[in-house]
Amino acid sequence: MLQAIGERLRAGQGPEAPGETWSGDDAAVVRLGAGRQRVLLTTDAVVAGVHGDLDLIGPADFGWKALTAAVSDIAAMGGTPRHAVVSVGAPPGSPLEELAEGLAEAARAWACPVVGGDLSEAAQLFVAVAVTGTLAGDRPAVLRSGARPGDALFVTGPLGASAAGLRVLRGGQPGGQDLVAAHRRPSARLAEGRVAREAGARAMLDLSDGLGLDLHRLARASQVGVRVDRVPAAAGATEEEALGGGEDYELLIAAPDDGRLERAFSAAGLRPPLRIGTCTADPTERRLGSQALPEAGYGHRL
Amino acid sequence: MLQAIGERLRAGQGPEAPGETWSGDDAAVVRLGAGRQRVLLTTDAVVAGVHGDLDLIGPADFGWKALTAAVSDIAAMGGTPRHAVVSVGAPPGSPLEELAEGLAEAARAWACPVVGGDLSEAAQLFVAVAVTGTLAGDRPAVLRSGARPGDALFVTGPLGASAAGLRVLRGGQPGGQDLVAAHRRPSARLAEGRVAREAGARAMLDLSDGLGLDLHRLARASQVGVRVDRVPAAAGATEEEALGGGEDYELLIAAPDDGRLERAFSAAGLRPPLRIGTCTADPTERRLGSQALPEAGYGHRL
Repeated sequence: MLQAIGERLRAGQGPEAPGETWSGDDAAVVRLGAGRQRVLLTTDAVVAGVHGDLDLIGPADFGWKALTAAVSDIAAMGGTPRHAVVSVGAPPGSPLEELAEGLAEAARAWACPVVGGDLSEAAQLFVAVAVTGTLAGDRPAVLRSGARPGDALFVTGPLGASAAGLRVLRGGQPGGQDLVAAHRRPSARLAEGRVAREAGARAMLDLSDGLGLDLHRLARASQVGVRVDRVPAAAGATEEEALGGGEDYELLIAAPDDGRLERAFSAAGLRPPLRIGTCTADPTERRLGSQALPEAGYGHRL
Repeated sequence: MLQAIGERLRAGQGPEAPGETWSGDDAAVVRLGAGRQRVLLTTDAVVAGVHGDLDLIGPADFGWKALTAAVSDIAAMGGTPRHAVVSVGAPPGSPLEELAEGLAEAARAWACPVVGGDLSEAAQLFVAVAVTGTLAGDRPAVLRSGARPGDALFVTGPLGASAAGLRVLRGGQPGGQDLVAAHRRPSARLAEGRVAREAGARAMLDLSDGLGLDLHRLARASQVGVRVDRVPAAAGATEEEALGGGEDYELLIAAPDDGRLERAFSAAGLRPPLRIGTCTADPTERRLGSQALPEAGYGHRL
């Protein structure tokens, strides 16, 4: 369905200009105006009851997640977010001030001010955020499609904390505060994305829908196989949550297997990237240890 | 409520850079990247049942309206739209291909390709569109706040056709095809906006919520009064529809009273702008003929 929509949208819109990348990556790369400056552009929507249960996480957390999800798309290109605009649909009586507070907190955290917006009545709360970004220097944005056989696969941190935090919230038990915080207030890995781009990362995407799904996406876009040796789970998260839980917003990176990425992260004072596997030459290969890699994660069920 | 949200969002986000204008106008004016290039940025959402009845107008019309509403914000700054990103929330089984077709038709009509998007499950169909734009030359964008006492007030066409078209559709009677088309497929007045900016227009906004409301907005932003002599109604539309009906997307323009705007429209081969009144020095004055100007139109009831 998504493909059919994409084809309709592309029909008759002419080709991308040189150096542009439209749909299909975390963010679009476009060129704007007389200077033909490269600009990143992305949008993400969160819907109450789909991307977050307001009874569990509260409206400020919901606003935070909405803005952070869009900013994370910029991180996954190796860019820097610049400005956000926000469309909100809300039932009468919605806690809009708290929602705005969470949006503002995320805008400050990621240095991405909200410069405009639109507010509509709706039966169900939704927040759609669009973000612009820029790329330092002349190097291309890091797309999903650049991985090559032999590249090492990394993630920027242990996975599954957000899904585990949701489990803790649903269970209503005490404890698990770190997990709950990971669910409520995910981070966008902006420094990691920028350093990875500078260090020659070949492909990158953010883990919004779960490693299982996103590994398949990287492999398809890059026409490589993937062999995964381990799935690093966050403390307190299960293997299944680490593989199939969404909304961690860590980055999945394919980089030449020469230690440069690790050295660059170390030099920048960042947490070491965690090596999880290797890209292979057979584009049909999708292995997790000795098993087939399940295409598990948050699917758009439409 | 909108103001309270705006204040929350602005808190701690630092000042606008020189030449920037954030919230409060049709689109934000921001500066991006090393070239400090001016970029326009706006977002608009349409929600099924609020901004359009899918039983009456169909999903392709709904997509058209969503993209056109955002593009119209760029027209109201005197800019040129460049790229759109679209977040869609939809119940399972929604007619997404038809929706995409309407989006694509509008993208072609306004030369504003859809370069990315996001699709979510939602209980109610919504389409949130964000659009970038550029400004030719060095002249500032035309804000809402620049009108001065003595300026002439114009609209770019007769009003109320969209509201009348909705009335025709609801009544189920035959005829009124022009009105129905105006409701289904509104136009963004891009050429008019650009020519008005070049001809020295001082304030401008698009009539998305109805002339009655939008005249008050212009007067408040510019700290002027308004004296309206006539409200030009489209053929088949009532006075009330012309004054209070939304979604016409004609532009409301304040320009020096020296005939320059009319001459520029004529030279560009555009329909003559319709003079409706004058800006006055008393910022509390809001008159329609000998009456008070009602603040009528589509309100955001939140």
